[in-house]
Amino acid sequence: MLNFNYSIPTKIFFGKGQIEVLGNQIKNYGSKVLLTYGGGSIKKNGIYNRVIEILKDNDIPFWELGGIDPNPRIDSIREGIKICRENDIDFILPVGGGSTIDCSKVMAAGFYYEGDPWDLVIRKSKIEKSLPIGAVLTLAATGSEMDAGAVITNLETKQKLGVSHPSMAPKFSILDPTYTFTVPKNQTAAGVADIMSHTFENYFTLEDGAYLQNRLAEAVLKTCIYYGKIAIDEPENYEARANIMWASSLAINGLLSYGKETIWSVHAMEHELSAYYDITHGIGLAILTPPWMEYVLDDTRLDKFVEYGVNVWGIDSDKDKYTIAKESIDKTKEFFISLGIPMTLREVGIGEENLENMAKAAIEHKDGVVGNFKPLYCEDVLAIYRRAL
Amino acid sequence: MLNFNYSIPTKIFFGKGQIEVLGNQIKNYGSKVLLTYGGGSIKKNGIYNRVIEILKDNDIPFWELGGIDPNPRIDSIREGIKICRENDIDFILPVGGGSTIDCSKVMAAGFYYEGDPWDLVIRKSKIEKSLPIGAVLTLAATGSEMDAGAVITNLETKQKLGVSHPSMAPKFSILDPTYTFTVPKNQTAAGVADIMSHTFENYFTLEDGAYLQNRLAEAVLKTCIYYGKIAIDEPENYEARANIMWASSLAINGLLSYGKETIWSVHAMEHELSAYYDITHGIGLAILTPPWMEYVLDDTRLDKFVEYGVNVWGIDSDKDKYTIAKESIDKTKEFFISLGIPMTLREVGIGEENLENMAKAAIEHKDGVVGNFKPLYCEDVLAIYRRAL
Repeated sequence: MLNFNYSIPTKIFFGKGQIEVLGNQIKNYGSKVLLTYGGGSIKKNGIYNRVIEILKDNDIPFWELGGIDPNPRIDSIREGIKICRENDIDFILPVGGGSTIDCSKVMAAGFYYEGDPWDLVIRKSKIEKSLPIGAVLTLAATGSEMDAGAVITNLETKQKLGVSHPSMAPKFSILDPTYTFTVPKNQTAAGVADIMSHTFENYFTLEDGAYLQNRLAEAVLKTCIYYGKIAIDEPENYEARANIMWASSLAINGLLSYGKETIWSVHAMEHELSAYYDITHGIGLAILTPPWMEYVLDDTRLDKFVEYGVNVWGIDSDKDKYTIAKESIDKTKEFFISLGIPMTLREVGIGEENLENMAKAAIEHKDGVVGNFKPLYCEDVLAIYRRAL
Repeated sequence: MLNFNYSIPTKIFFGKGQIEVLGNQIKNYGSKVLLTYGGGSIKKNGIYNRVIEILKDNDIPFWELGGIDPNPRIDSIREGIKICRENDIDFILPVGGGSTIDCSKVMAAGFYYEGDPWDLVIRKSKIEKSLPIGAVLTLAATGSEMDAGAVITNLETKQKLGVSHPSMAPKFSILDPTYTFTVPKNQTAAGVADIMSHTFENYFTLEDGAYLQNRLAEAVLKTCIYYGKIAIDEPENYEARANIMWASSLAINGLLSYGKETIWSVHAMEHELSAYYDITHGIGLAILTPPWMEYVLDDTRLDKFVEYGVNVWGIDSDKDKYTIAKESIDKTKEFFISLGIPMTLREVGIGEENLENMAKAAIEHKDGVVGNFKPLYCEDVLAIYRRAL
C-alpha cells in the first residue's frame, strides 16, 4: 500500500427530505448565492421551486445561471464568474448533476483568478482558492458532489480536460435519492456506467498491496450490478436509487484510490469522444470498457481479471484463468447491454473519420501515455477505438 | 437505507515516515501540547524519542502524561485536565492505541467542563466543545484515531461506558504501519478481533436496504481474515500491518454504519467483562462473539448469517441455509483460535461468580435492552455469558 493523505471534508446530507437543511447550511458559508443548473429538468420536477422557496424563506439573495450543458463548457464558467463579480456573490449552489457541479467548481476557482478561467483548466495558471460551494444532487453518476475535481469542455479547441483543487470540494452536498426518480432510463444507465468506470479505473492496477481498497471497490461494483437494472425497471425504487447514489460518491471521493497508484485509462480515451462528438460521457465509457479490457488482458494482467471475475461476478475460481478473465469481460458487456446501452461507437454516430486525431489528442493530453495498468500509446488507443467501432 | 448526515473530518496521514508532518500539523491547531501515552512501549521502540525531537525542533512547548492504562480510567482524565489548566495547554497529542486516544478525547472535552469529567461520561452533563487533539497511532484496533467516541472505565463504580461528541474527533491522525511492527502477537490478535467486532456490530442488522454498506463491511472482514494471521506470523509484514491499520479506522468511522440502524450487542456485553475483570477488550469480544452468534441465530436472522457465510467465508450458497449459518459461526471461531485467542471466559480468569451482576449491569447501562439485531434482555445476556464460560 502506498502512502496517502486522506481528507474528505465534504459533509453529506443523505436521504428523503434532506433539502430542509439547505438554508442553514448556506448561511454557514455565505450570504449571496449564485444558483446554477442545467437544461431545466429541475423546473419540471419541482426541485427548482423548493430551492427558491428555501432561499426566499431564509432571506438569502440569489442570482441564477441556467442552461449549463452536459459536458459543461468553459463559456458557462466565464458567464458565471461575471455574475458573481458584478453582484458580490460569495456562495455557489449547483442544483443538478456532475456537469452543473463541475462547472460551478471552476467558476468558484476562477472567481479569484484575473485571467481567463481556461488557463486554470490547462494549468497555465494555478488555482489558489475558491468560493465555497454546496451542491444539491439530482443525478447519480460523476461523484462530483464529494470530490475536488471537475471536467470541462472547450468546443473551440476540441478539448475536454480534468482539473482538481482541494478548495473546489463542496462544503456540503444534499443527496436525496427521490430526486433521481425522474431521471430517464438512458441517463440512469449512463450514470451506472460512469460509477462503474470510476471504480474500474481505481481497481485495475497491478499488485499494489491495497487489498482493502480492492475489496471496497468490489463492494461498489457489486452494488451497481445488483441495483443498476432495478433502477431502470423501477425508477421509483428507493433502495435502488439510494444505493446507486451513495455508490456514485464513494467511487471517486478517494476511498478507492488512496494508497494505490491509479492513472486512468478509459476516461482519457472517452474524453476525446465527448470533446469531438459531444456524446454522453457514461455511454462512451461503457462502449470503450469491454474493448479496453480485451486489449489489455495478457499474462501480466491476468491475475487482476481473475480477481475481478471471481470476486465481482462470482465465476468459479477452479476454472482456467483465461476462461475466468474472458467470462468476466463478457459479463461486463452483457451487463451494460442489459441496461440498454449501445455497445458500438457507430451506434452513437462515431465512425472512422476522427479516430486517429482523437487517439493523438488522448495521448497528447496525457503527456504521451494513457494509463498505467497497461500503458497505452497512440497505436494502442487507436486499436481500442477501432475495436469499439 | 436510512437517512444520514455524513461528516468524517479527521485528516489521515498514512504510511511510512508520515511522522514528519507532525510539527506543522500541530501548529495548525495549537501552541502548547500535552503529550499522552500508555505503559511505555513507545519509549522502547523509539517513537517517543522521535516525537520529542519533532516537538523540540518546532519549538513547541510540551508537558507529558504517561501511564495511561488499557481500559483507560477516569483518574487519568482528571489528572490530564489539571495539567492542561495549570499550563494553558491548547492541544492534546496522544501517542499510542485506542486507550490513550480515548482518554485524551475526554480530557479534551473535560477541559471545558467545570465539574468532574465522569459527569460527561454518564451524561449528567453535556459536552459542548473540546480542545483540539491529534493522534499518533501505534496499535490497530479501536478506530479511535478516526472517530468521535471514547470508552472510559471507572473502577470504583465498576463501570465502562462509551461517550461521543463531534468535537472530540481528532483533527488529524498519523498512521504509520511500521509503528505496529513491535506489537506483540496477543495484542495484534486482540486488535484484529476488535476491528472484526466493530464490523459485526455494524453488519448484523435485519434487512435495511443498506446493500452498499453491507458489502463494504464484508470488505473489511475479508481484509482482517486475509491478513490477521499473517500479521501475527510475520510481524514486520508491511502490507499486513497496513491493511489491518486502515481497516481499524474504516470499521468504525461511520462508513459502515451510516444509513443503518446499529445498536451494538457484543460490545455492551464485553464492557462488563472489562469493567469487572480488566481483561483485554478485543479478547473479551472474540470470546463472546461465537456464543452470541449461536444464541441469536433463528429463522428471523437466518438470512443475514447466510449472507455472512457466503460472502465473507465463501461457503457454497447451494447448501442448506442453517448449514451455511452454522458453518459461518464455526469458521469465525476457528479463525479466532488460529490467532491464538482463548475461546472461553474461564481461560481469562472469569468464572460464574459475577455473571448475574454483569448481565444486570449490561442491561442497566443500555436502558433495559442490549442490541437490536435480536434484542437481548437480562436472561439472554446471562445465557450468552454462560455459553462462553
